[in-house]
Amino acid sequence: MTSILKKTEQDFLAFVKKIEDYEQAVSLLAWDARTGTPKKGVSQRAEVYGTLSTAVFEMATSKEMGTYLEALTEKNVQAELSPLTPKVVQKCQEKYDRYINIPQDEYQAYMTLQGQSEAVWQEAKQKADFELFRPNVEKMIDFQKRFANYYDPKAHVYHTLLDVYEPGVFTDTLDKVFAELREALVPLVQAVTTSAVQPNIDRLLQPFPKEKQRALSEAMLREIGYDFDAGRLDEAAHPFAIGLNPNDVRVTTRYNEQDFRTALFGTIHEGGHALYEQNVSKDLLGTPLCQGTSMGIHESQSLLWEKFIGKSKPFWERNYELLKKHAAGKFDQMSLDEFYFAVNKAEPSLIRVEADELTYPLHVILRYELEKGLFAGEIAVKDLPGLWNEKMAEYLGIRPAHDGEGVLQDTHWAFGLFGYFPSYALGYIYAAQLKEALVKDVPNLDETIAAGNYAPIHEWLRTNVHQYGAAKKPVDIIRDVTGGGIDPTPLIRYLDEKYRRLYQV
Amino acid sequence: MTSILKKTEQDFLAFVKKIEDYEQAVSLLAWDARTGTPKKGVSQRAEVYGTLSTAVFEMATSKEMGTYLEALTEKNVQAELSPLTPKVVQKCQEKYDRYINIPQDEYQAYMTLQGQSEAVWQEAKQKADFELFRPNVEKMIDFQKRFANYYDPKAHVYHTLLDVYEPGVFTDTLDKVFAELREALVPLVQAVTTSAVQPNIDRLLQPFPKEKQRALSEAMLREIGYDFDAGRLDEAAHPFAIGLNPNDVRVTTRYNEQDFRTALFGTIHEGGHALYEQNVSKDLLGTPLCQGTSMGIHESQSLLWEKFIGKSKPFWERNYELLKKHAAGKFDQMSLDEFYFAVNKAEPSLIRVEADELTYPLHVILRYELEKGLFAGEIAVKDLPGLWNEKMAEYLGIRPAHDGEGVLQDTHWAFGLFGYFPSYALGYIYAAQLKEALVKDVPNLDETIAAGNYAPIHEWLRTNVHQYGAAKKPVDIIRDVTGGGIDPTPLIRYLDEKYRRLYQV
Repeated sequence: MTSILKKTEQDFLAFVKKIEDYEQAVSLLAWDARTGTPKKGVSQRAEVYGTLSTAVFEMATSKEMGTYLEALTEKNVQAELSPLTPKVVQKCQEKYDRYINIPQDEYQAYMTLQGQSEAVWQEAKQKADFELFRPNVEKMIDFQKRFANYYDPKAHVYHTLLDVYEPGVFTDTLDKVFAELREALVPLVQAVTTSAVQPNIDRLLQPFPKEKQRALSEAMLREIGYDFDAGRLDEAAHPFAIGLNPNDVRVTTRYNEQDFRTALFGTIHEGGHALYEQNVSKDLLGTPLCQGTSMGIHESQSLLWEKFIGKSKPFWERNYELLKKHAAGKFDQMSLDEFYFAVNKAEPSLIRVEADELTYPLHVILRYELEKGLFAGEIAVKDLPGLWNEKMAEYLGIRPAHDGEGVLQDTHWAFGLFGYFPSYALGYIYAAQLKEALVKDVPNLDETIAAGNYAPIHEWLRTNVHQYGAAKKPVDIIRDVTGGGIDPTPLIRYLDEKYRRLYQV
Repeated sequence: MTSILKKTEQDFLAFVKKIEDYEQAVSLLAWDARTGTPKKGVSQRAEVYGTLSTAVFEMATSKEMGTYLEALTEKNVQAELSPLTPKVVQKCQEKYDRYINIPQDEYQAYMTLQGQSEAVWQEAKQKADFELFRPNVEKMIDFQKRFANYYDPKAHVYHTLLDVYEPGVFTDTLDKVFAELREALVPLVQAVTTSAVQPNIDRLLQPFPKEKQRALSEAMLREIGYDFDAGRLDEAAHPFAIGLNPNDVRVTTRYNEQDFRTALFGTIHEGGHALYEQNVSKDLLGTPLCQGTSMGIHESQSLLWEKFIGKSKPFWERNYELLKKHAAGKFDQMSLDEFYFAVNKAEPSLIRVEADELTYPLHVILRYELEKGLFAGEIAVKDLPGLWNEKMAEYLGIRPAHDGEGVLQDTHWAFGLFGYFPSYALGYIYAAQLKEALVKDVPNLDETIAAGNYAPIHEWLRTNVHQYGAAKKPVDIIRDVTGGGIDPTPLIRYLDEKYRRLYQV
């Protein structure tokens, strides 16, 4: 290896490390904005966030970056580099290519629209008036189309968007797996809804003081193996987990004193995201590979812990006493079976983020179908509210009373996040696939969980998923674990077995 | 005004705003590092902090900055600029001049030494072994000498250092005012120490649960007018206040369950700093003028609230009931007079940060005398421990048992902060001067405080001190308020009257 190349590689990695340091500062600004920035400081905070985000963008698409990428992707060069470097180069190249052709003024206009769009969406949602929000959605779609064309004029726009969140998974795959899933779930939801056997959730809705819920949330995070020496738990109106680096991965939750399930299962969900980020290999520190590999794989980790473990019978065999200890007598008269059925109650509802695990995928599939139609030119923005309501009736048998609880409920489109929704359902499908693979390697999984012995689970997840960070593509993770591709069968099997048993249908 | 000049001015202000945005991010990183960064995240955090601090340093001493400063300080140009711009230019020029001639590698070596030096100091302090720390102090002094010479080879090094923290206040002034202060305080401390009349502080040392102290601290911050919509209160091992901008000024405190005075008066102290930063004019946002003007003036604000108001009789006439409410019966048997005397107990002690208001200035004067001797070449580093102990005996009548509670107690020298200590005592002197001026304008100050009517105080401080931020030099603030210069007489008068009355000496 020539010393010039060696020097170029070192300089490139130092430059990448600098960008990553900036990204960590941006993450801290975002965390603080959502957990602790004082009210009056919000607008200044947005300016600081904008300044540093712009600096990251500028570095990632700079001439300097272009020169490094050119030098380090030359033929015969890659084999000379340290094993990790080509992957770092590839990751930087993807971002570079995606943004380099967007004219500065268009990107600026897009950022400005994004900055305004959330407030418009909030007002529209509050007034249940989609027409207020419609122009913003139209402009956002227009921007996305133009940006996607700058990147790859030959590709389908929606493919280019999907590729951001779940690399390599396109509409051919999504159409197929979502159709299978939908066809299995719609009748199952109907059966469950009309079953004479229903859980009683009254006791779940008894007041549960915030301080006691906080202690329970902390205990639950410790229970599932979250490392408080590499993280912390705070409150946020819209909970999230955020990893600055594997040694600093923060969880947030929201306490509803009338319904402790919000915090309990929300905390386990975000804890699942956090376990992923805490266990990325430290060898990847200082590179853009030191994070989850995709939205879908990330969501698979949160859902695995929240649903497949956190809502399982063995988990509550072990933890019901812990819950009772924090609940000041509320569940003394409730058997474990009653409790287990109650926290797994499934019924059609209007709001995605509040949906149970059985109906949840249908909410996502609905959004996918609308987005796909929008970018194929088959659906006009003005028709979204009506189509939304029709699909809700068709898939879940209920219909929003107004657009505030219909098409306006989610914030994603206000931020231009088209192509993001499918990863929620993909994550669910992945989680079921991973769970089946895990059971093959840890056959006594239920006993393991009931004994609170999570070490084999952590070890398996670290080995097969976590350690790689973004150095391994989602499709490779799934293939290496399952021997195949994306397959909705494990999820359908899981939901079918669990809910037919619970509801005796 | 030519359009080229106008454009240069705008570009300069935008560049300055960018640097300030970075500074705010750096401040948030610092706040988080001291309040919430998880244990394992500390070293990554230091790297991110280093990267952004370096970026600030690079911008502040960049060719771009140099070009702006040159263009905007030309003759005939300054009168054409917006009224604020010349002050911003001056502030940037000061920083530019101070650093521009330091060779990059020397600055890097200095930063590296600084990074290592704290750990060395900590070990030396723990082992009470000054010899461990001595080489670092020597190297730090050497760096400071060289840097000061790059800046101004004709000036006294210690003057150049003092000028950083308290612009325009040099050893001629300090020698004079500190001598006056010392000569007044040494006999007063002796009189108080040997008085037969002594307060009983037993009740102050009863256990006071942290949660109750937290509520008391919050109540006290509200009481003195701290705006929680533009700030927040957190815990830190070494409490501080930090202003990101006037809309986001954060206070920290430390709870000692065996001695509630630590948090109570510490919170008021930091609250005084915070009131200053919250009330800087918002016209200064986005410039380096949007902060306190000097260490000394800053300290005057914290001490004014902590000592001159927070330890005054009228303050406790109003707030003793509030304290009792939070103290769960602890003070029911203690009269207001007994309490007032107890919280104003004065006695010689070894540790500066724990010293009472009477003995505190002597701790600072001692450090000043040693620093001055070091930079004049009259004192060798190896002689510091002995000289420290002699001066302690001379000024306070007590002697450290070891260097851990003597010369090694403060961290400042580990960070190369020479010239910083005097501003602690200057702030105290300023506070007394400001208090006397305040009483002239608000003659019924005691009644005002006893009634909890702080509005006239806030208004006076905003008008005379706060609003200007760093756009007005400390010397101008003091001159405009008092009609004169730095004068220790008001502080001596205050301490003499208060302690002779309390101790009946």
